[in-house]
Amino acid sequence: MIAAMNAELPPLLPGSVWLVGAGPGDPGLLTLLAAHALDQADHVVHDALVDARIIAGIPAGAVVESMGKRGGAASPHQTEITARLVELARAGKKVVRLKGGDPFVFGRGAEEALALADAAIPFRVVPGISAGIGGLAYAGIPATAKQCNSTLAFVTGHDQDGDVPDGFDWNALAKGAEVIVFYMGLRKVDTLVARLLAAGRKPDELMAVVSRAATLEQKVLETTLGRLEADLAATPLAAPALLVLGGVVALRARLDWWRP
Amino acid sequence: MIAAMNAELPPLLPGSVWLVGAGPGDPGLLTLLAAHALDQADHVVHDALVDARIIAGIPAGAVVESMGKRGGAASPHQTEITARLVELARAGKKVVRLKGGDPFVFGRGAEEALALADAAIPFRVVPGISAGIGGLAYAGIPATAKQCNSTLAFVTGHDQDGDVPDGFDWNALAKGAEVIVFYMGLRKVDTLVARLLAAGRKPDELMAVVSRAATLEQKVLETTLGRLEADLAATPLAAPALLVLGGVVALRARLDWWRP
Repeated sequence: MIAAMNAELPPLLPGSVWLVGAGPGDPGLLTLLAAHALDQADHVVHDALVDARIIAGIPAGAVVESMGKRGGAASPHQTEITARLVELARAGKKVVRLKGGDPFVFGRGAEEALALADAAIPFRVVPGISAGIGGLAYAGIPATAKQCNSTLAFVTGHDQDGDVPDGFDWNALAKGAEVIVFYMGLRKVDTLVARLLAAGRKPDELMAVVSRAATLEQKVLETTLGRLEADLAATPLAAPALLVLGGVVALRARLDWWRP
Repeated sequence: MIAAMNAELPPLLPGSVWLVGAGPGDPGLLTLLAAHALDQADHVVHDALVDARIIAGIPAGAVVESMGKRGGAASPHQTEITARLVELARAGKKVVRLKGGDPFVFGRGAEEALALADAAIPFRVVPGISAGIGGLAYAGIPATAKQCNSTLAFVTGHDQDGDVPDGFDWNALAKGAEVIVFYMGLRKVDTLVARLLAAGRKPDELMAVVSRAATLEQKVLETTLGRLEADLAATPLAAPALLVLGGVVALRARLDWWRP
C-alpha cells in the first residue's frame, strides 16, 4: 500500500518550498507526503523540535540545515529563517522546511507561508500530527472523550518574550474549555497555576505533564492543579512539554498503552 | 526514506487492534504507521469518514468492513462496533479500526480504546491528522498565526442527539478562545450563531465553512458570523464540515495554496 500510494503523490518542484510537519517524535507518525518530500528534497531546513531519528533518516543527497528556535537559547530570528527559505527557492532548490508537530499549530508556519506567498514562491503545506493530540495519545490521554469533554482548547504557554501570553481572556477560557492543553516550557508554571485557580479551576483537578511526548525520552507526570508546582520541583522534566488539564487525564490509568 | 523507515515500524500482532486515524482525506496524509497497519491487517473496520481513495488502496488480502456512524442515517451503535472489534481480536485477527481524522478528537476512539482495555485486548493508538488542523490547512487557513491567536478551541457541533452540546459554558468559551473550530453537520447552524452572538462575538467577524476538507470535493465558503445562515441557505454545502471563526480566516486570501 505504501508503495502504491507513494506513486500517486505530487512532485516537489525546483524553486518551491514545502512546509512540512514532522509530528511529535515517533518517525512512524511522519505522513506519506512528509517522507516523500524528504525523499525528493535538495535542501532541508529543520527546527530544533524534529526528532533526531527523522533527521538521521533524511537521504544523503539532501543538504540538512538546522535553523531551530528554542525557548531561552540563542536562535535565529524568524525573519532570517524566512529569508533563507526564499533564497534557497530562488536558487532553484527543492526545499523542505521541516517543523516539529504541525506547521500551523503554534509553529510560526503561518508567518513562513505568508512570507513565501509574498515573495511569490510556490509552496505547499504538509500538515503533521500536532503534539497536543498525538503526543498526548502516546501518554495514554485522549484529547477528547465523550464522557469528559465537548470542547478542547490549545494554548501556547509563551509569547514572544517567553511569558505566559495575555492577549486573550484567561478567565473566560479557563471557565469555558473543559480540557485545556498548554504547549510550553516549564519556567512559567507558577503564573499558569495562579491564573487557572483564579478562574475557578479546582486545585484537585487532574493534570498531566508530558515531557518530550512520543520520543524515546517521553516522561509523564500525573498530578493535580494544586500539586503541579511542587511535583515539578521534585521531579524536573525536560522541555518541550505539554500540560493537560481536565477529566481525560483520569483515562490514562486504563489507556497507558505505549512503552518508549 | 519511506522504505528504510518502514522497516523499523512495529508489527501488528494477531489478536490485537490498532486504532488508526486516516486523516482528513488526502491519502498522502496517512502516516507511515497507518499505511503499515493497513499493509498487515487481516481485517479493517472503517467508519464513514475515511476517504474512498484510502479504502480503495487497502491490499486485497484484508477483509474490509464498513461500520460507519454518520449524523442522521441509520448506523451501528457504538457498543456494536466495540463488540465487533473485541470479537475479531479474540478470533486471532490482526485488526485495524480505521477512523477519519484522529481517533481521539471527537471520534469516539476513547470509548473504543477503553472497551479494548477492559477486554484485555492488546491495542495501539495511531494518531491521524485531525481535520480541524490539517483540513483547514488545505483551505489555506492556519489554525494559529502569531498575529491572530494564542488560543485555539475545538468544539463538537453535535451531542448524542445531534444537537449543539450544552454541557459546558458556551459564553465563556466564546469569550475566551480567539479562534474556534466547530466539527459538525450544518443542521444546527442557527443555534450556533445565536450562541456566539449572545456571547459577544461580532456579526462582522470572519468565518469560513470548509466542506469535505482535503478531499476532491472540498468546497470553502468565506462569510461572516452575521451572514453565515443566509450564505449557507444560498449555497448548500455537504457534510462533514468544519466551521472556523476568527482572524485566521483572513489569511486565506494570501494562503489559498491547494487545488483539489
